[in-house]
Amino acid sequence: MSTLKIDSEATNSPTGLDPVDSETAVVFRGDGEPGSPRRLLERLAAVDSGTSLESDSYSLGGSVAALERHFADALGKEAAIFMPTGTLANHLAIRALCEGKPRAIVQEQCHLYHDSGDCVQRLSNINLIPLGNGRPGFTLEELQEAVSESVSGRVVSPVGAMMIESPVRRQQGQTVSYEDMRAMTDYCRSEGIHTHLDGARLYMMSAASGISPGEYTALFDTVYVSMYKYFGAPFGAILAGDSRWIDGMYHTRRMFGGGLSHSYLAAALALDGAKGFEERFQAAMQKGRGLFKSLNDLDGVQIDEFRHGSNIFPLILDETIDSEPMIDALRRRDIHVYPPENPEAGFTLTINTTVLRQPDEIIRTAFEDAVQEAQSSR
Amino acid sequence: MSTLKIDSEATNSPTGLDPVDSETAVVFRGDGEPGSPRRLLERLAAVDSGTSLESDSYSLGGSVAALERHFADALGKEAAIFMPTGTLANHLAIRALCEGKPRAIVQEQCHLYHDSGDCVQRLSNINLIPLGNGRPGFTLEELQEAVSESVSGRVVSPVGAMMIESPVRRQQGQTVSYEDMRAMTDYCRSEGIHTHLDGARLYMMSAASGISPGEYTALFDTVYVSMYKYFGAPFGAILAGDSRWIDGMYHTRRMFGGGLSHSYLAAALALDGAKGFEERFQAAMQKGRGLFKSLNDLDGVQIDEFRHGSNIFPLILDETIDSEPMIDALRRRDIHVYPPENPEAGFTLTINTTVLRQPDEIIRTAFEDAVQEAQSSR
Amino acid sequence: MSTLKIDSEATNSPTGLDPVDSETAVVFRGDGEPGSPRRLLERLAAVDSGTSLESDSYSLGGSVAALERHFADALGKEAAIFMPTGTLANHLAIRALCEGKPRAIVQEQCHLYHDSGDCVQRLSNINLIPLGNGRPGFTLEELQEAVSESVSGRVVSPVGAMMIESPVRRQQGQTVSYEDMRAMTDYCRSEGIHTHLDGARLYMMSAASGISPGEYTALFDTVYVSMYKYFGAPFGAILAGDSRWIDGMYHTRRMFGGGLSHSYLAAALALDGAKGFEERFQAAMQKGRGLFKSLNDLDGVQIDEFRHGSNIFPLILDETIDSEPMIDALRRRDIHVYPPENPEAGFTLTINTTVLRQPDEIIRTAFEDAVQEAQSSR
Amino acid sequence: MSTLKIDSEATNSPTGLDPVDSETAVVFRGDGEPGSPRRLLERLAAVDSGTSLESDSYSLGGSVAALERHFADALGKEAAIFMPTGTLANHLAIRALCEGKPRAIVQEQCHLYHDSGDCVQRLSNINLIPLGNGRPGFTLEELQEAVSESVSGRVVSPVGAMMIESPVRRQQGQTVSYEDMRAMTDYCRSEGIHTHLDGARLYMMSAASGISPGEYTALFDTVYVSMYKYFGAPFGAILAGDSRWIDGMYHTRRMFGGGLSHSYLAAALALDGAKGFEERFQAAMQKGRGLFKSLNDLDGVQIDEFRHGSNIFPLILDETIDSEPMIDALRRRDIHVYPPENPEAGFTLTINTTVLRQPDEIIRTAFEDAVQEAQSSR
Repeated sequence: MSTLKIDSEATNSPTGLDPVDSETAVVFRGDGEPGSPRRLLERLAAVDSGTSLESDSYSLGGSVAALERHFADALGKEAAIFMPTGTLANHLAIRALCEGKPRAIVQEQCHLYHDSGDCVQRLSNINLIPLGNGRPGFTLEELQEAVSESVSGRVVSPVGAMMIESPVRRQQGQTVSYEDMRAMTDYCRSEGIHTHLDGARLYMMSAASGISPGEYTALFDTVYVSMYKYFGAPFGAILAGDSRWIDGMYHTRRMFGGGLSHSYLAAALALDGAKGFEERFQAAMQKGRGLFKSLNDLDGVQIDEFRHGSNIFPLILDETIDSEPMIDALRRRDIHVYPPENPEAGFTLTINTTVLRQPDEIIRTAFEDAVQEAQSSR
Repeated sequence: MSTLKIDSEATNSPTGLDPVDSETAVVFRGDGEPGSPRRLLERLAAVDSGTSLESDSYSLGGSVAALERHFADALGKEAAIFMPTGTLANHLAIRALCEGKPRAIVQEQCHLYHDSGDCVQRLSNINLIPLGNGRPGFTLEELQEAVSESVSGRVVSPVGAMMIESPVRRQQGQTVSYEDMRAMTDYCRSEGIHTHLDGARLYMMSAASGISPGEYTALFDTVYVSMYKYFGAPFGAILAGDSRWIDGMYHTRRMFGGGLSHSYLAAALALDGAKGFEERFQAAMQKGRGLFKSLNDLDGVQIDEFRHGSNIFPLILDETIDSEPMIDALRRRDIHVYPPENPEAGFTLTINTTVLRQPDEIIRTAFEDAVQEAQSSR
Repeated sequence: MSTLKIDSEATNSPTGLDPVDSETAVVFRGDGEPGSPRRLLERLAAVDSGTSLESDSYSLGGSVAALERHFADALGKEAAIFMPTGTLANHLAIRALCEGKPRAIVQEQCHLYHDSGDCVQRLSNINLIPLGNGRPGFTLEELQEAVSESVSGRVVSPVGAMMIESPVRRQQGQTVSYEDMRAMTDYCRSEGIHTHLDGARLYMMSAASGISPGEYTALFDTVYVSMYKYFGAPFGAILAGDSRWIDGMYHTRRMFGGGLSHSYLAAALALDGAKGFEERFQAAMQKGRGLFKSLNDLDGVQIDEFRHGSNIFPLILDETIDSEPMIDALRRRDIHVYPPENPEAGFTLTINTTVLRQPDEIIRTAFEDAVQEAQSSR
Repeated sequence: MSTLKIDSEATNSPTGLDPVDSETAVVFRGDGEPGSPRRLLERLAAVDSGTSLESDSYSLGGSVAALERHFADALGKEAAIFMPTGTLANHLAIRALCEGKPRAIVQEQCHLYHDSGDCVQRLSNINLIPLGNGRPGFTLEELQEAVSESVSGRVVSPVGAMMIESPVRRQQGQTVSYEDMRAMTDYCRSEGIHTHLDGARLYMMSAASGISPGEYTALFDTVYVSMYKYFGAPFGAILAGDSRWIDGMYHTRRMFGGGLSHSYLAAALALDGAKGFEERFQAAMQKGRGLFKSLNDLDGVQIDEFRHGSNIFPLILDETIDSEPMIDALRRRDIHVYPPENPEAGFTLTINTTVLRQPDEIIRTAFEDAVQEAQSSR
């Protein structure tokens, strides 16, 4: 039997850290709970006995339709469609929203601009205009200037859509503020530009800001939410929006090769994982923040908060603490902290629902002991 | 719990016939065995206990790599890559094989020309030239003329790839003969045109002709085989070919939105279903053909064979037999025959491995009794 | 000074026949009158003294606008736009008329399908569905079937536009009949499919059928007419249609690299050549037909008419006449007939306005003498 | 007869200033000499009597081939191809140089990124990565980072080509320095990235820097030079490079609709205008710079030089001089200076060969008198 993890991108990292299979472990990495194939089968069995496993035909009907219905409601939209990947969800949203117009505006730092193989440009012939170079977001002024530029060149190349990714994965989960989102989507509406939210981690942003998912999604024409990063599906994404955008999109999904003959296992697991998730994650964020505050009392340990951050927090260890023995000491106490993937970046702690598995006192004591071990080992 | 079928396209047909969940039923429709979500979970549990379930990361590694290795070997190619759908497998094969040339030649009747949303034309800007209008295949002369035409127009538009689909789904599983395939791939090789086999149902063709899968695939640069039509995976396809074509194709797969974060469940089920399948299906074809021969003795029943047919056989009932009572009588004996989806088409019987579930004598007797019932009901 | 011809495609043929610079020559090839650079300069000077030469800016305004206005009126459309080539005119028409739909229907034999580098497929991602294989046109039934097919496949790929080329260059100028055009455009209108006429040689068709250009163009949403094949412009095309299609198309023209900084020379020459052309060409057709009828009296000479032909007529010489001495004898009398470009094709005579340069009697006598010479040379 | 100008973009400006038709006028705007249709006809007649007018067939052969040969040699490349527009020349260069790779790097301020309708992205599916936001060029470090980024994302999207536009039209003719060009093209060569120079105004840059056109073009795989901005052709561009890139490109030119049936008039005029141009423009630059130096003695007048500028110079009038009367006074002396198109920008003087039409003393005196008039008018 495999012991590889399946739930979180981060835990499949090529840095090759120990996987975590315990159900009591507190894991400060990833947005969801790590898991194993065995765990997935157990969950599937539970889902099945709950009578909610129903076959689909080419990703239409059955458990897939149930998932789509659930998220259309949860995100306050008329309709939703299951997509095999977030890449396809974002792509088809922009493709639809542009309605033949050749430009879409995105953050320079967004996943779609850097990490999706230029799919929108290469396959849908839409030019993504990158704004806010190196920053989590762009300003209303930058947006206005890009829109104005698009219709004042020698050849008019109008902007059909604007996308905001938030939290921003490449910027340690920092978010675009609700106020900024509102100002920008208002402006776009006035200009006839449609808007899309890459809300892969919408629930993290919402728990951090206290603004509900529905309040965010109400600002946008369409929104994408990941099904596998924290709801425990093996793969999948939801794209929600008004029927105008979503109905009939399964034709395009199939054209792109995304009409899987059966998606109901993934859909049923996502639906199961989504139940009560919002509340659990809110509780985790509250607990985690309190915990980090108390850990700041420890000598040599400092946990900050990013501006407009979500569930990722920078951890600074002073020169009295060596990180390797500290991480090792924590791991022996079933608390898991990881060195940065990129050595130039600093340490971070990511809050997810595993923080609910242990009382604060246990976690705090583990940190205290680990600091002591690490300092005495010098 | 759901009782919908998951294995076979045909059994999910919108014609709404009774699903079949029995493990003793003989079902003359579809290339694989029908199944239910419950059945899938049981198979998954069996696979897991067999220690072959291993997580992948974005469709790389784990059980996915094992499946790819297995089919690269089985199909006699250096490498293979898992794809979420056959649509994507065929598309990316042609995209790669064309190497920037703007035309590919296909059968007018092929799935890619009619049923894939013009994906190759719209997303990869490759013009598919349809040959053999209304027929299962085209001739070498038609191929040569199209190639010659492509470089003699005012603007040279050279052909980069040729694809043959066989068996041809739209032509009741009729195949392109091995000799024709060899003549056409030889010609293409001499012209620097790469070749792809849409062998979604390669194993059906092979069992019908007695020519091994490897002999077919040796003619082509790349080959696609379905993982869900008869191997029992919920979804998936394999594209096999030399490393030159396959290595690095996961980048393109991801660009198209086909890099599922976890595909190991589907891959492990496909790998499990593929074990011994070739032999089982050969046995089924042999048994089925013998059975059909013996059924031809029955009054009013005639089962023919298509020219270059695969596992689909035309069934002709004379005017003494009404089809509805006949189908009904068979169903009560757990033998399943279906009216044509398209009322203009005739009845067909499709051989698959469910024919192995009952001795010939039982099946023959069931047909005898059903004919008698149907005739007496007039 | 150069003596190469500039007016007619045919006379620039790579077969390398003698160019013709005389103003009295009767030339049975090409739709326009052959000419030389010197001749073009003389015409430009004449145009200039006629005060109609006015500069444009990037193909907007000046003589270009005057040409567009003229042809919008002549073709009965709200607007017209100058294009540097017919390739671009046809392409941008289909691109606009499709309005994002992925398919357009064309004749398999049309120029756009064979001789334009698959531009529509490669650059606008529109799949051209070729109908009427090897014939001048397709039938209403074929059209209806293709339209029905486009929305009944697994992935809907609707047809946005239909184009008819008439006369058909690859079919020796044969035309699609007005009745067929009307039936097909009526059907398209009822299905929400827009229509385009590739009327590069519209005036030839019109003179042959007696149906006015405006009657033809009224059936279609847009129409393209060549400016260089017989109006004597060095290059250029007009695309006419309602403002809905034409206004703003100069942006797309520029995007494709077709926004020449100055097109007024070509536009002014086209406008000049178009004056009175319709009447002159009608007169030429009438004269030519009468002439051919009378030539049929000659021993060994037979001039037929194609079914739905335009200005090209098959010439059959019986075995008593060798073609080479016959052509030679005619040329010495300033009557120019050419062997077929493709040796498999037969001889043809093309009527253009050079037939007006000599009285019938002179031309007839030249043929009589040439036949005699050719026969006696055997 | 028209009095509109045809030679210079600037003089066709929508600001609607008086056109200039005099052959003695000194015009501080545009890179070429302004002209009229009448003037063009005179030049054509002169070209014709010079025996250099030879017809082409679809932009192949004749005067077009002569022009291509001339510029291949002048730019030090194996081959050259005539294009109807610079838009198409730049586009097809990048399309070819990328060889199927999906990214090309350009200056954010370049014409191709802002003013060409996103043609490369929309028609060739190549993502243009804009660097050097708001500045004439980008740095080697920015280039290296973008290249490194392109192969380190989740989906590899390699860079196939880099383009440098110089002088930069949107940055008042400022140039990228030869040293920077060399460093960047060296780096690209080492990375297997092909390079293109948008040298629409190459001869202006060369005259300003004293570095010959050939030294610049030797750094790049391909180079585009405008034929109409200063050589006096009504339209056209040359793309030069090694045969590997240029041979056969006429197929693509035709596919894009740029294969004009006759381009020889434009080609012959360009060839005529190119004769001795390099020397004339060098003389003009030297004379203009000396003149501007001497004008700096005038009270209230300051003429600066841009960093890495070409033939455009900022003119600053102090508060004692009103610009309108000053411009008016100059115009009456046949010296033509124009207010900025964009009121936010400052005044500029552009040197072209009209500065050779009058002795320095005459021009200087005109400025002196104009300043005096303008000051006394306050």
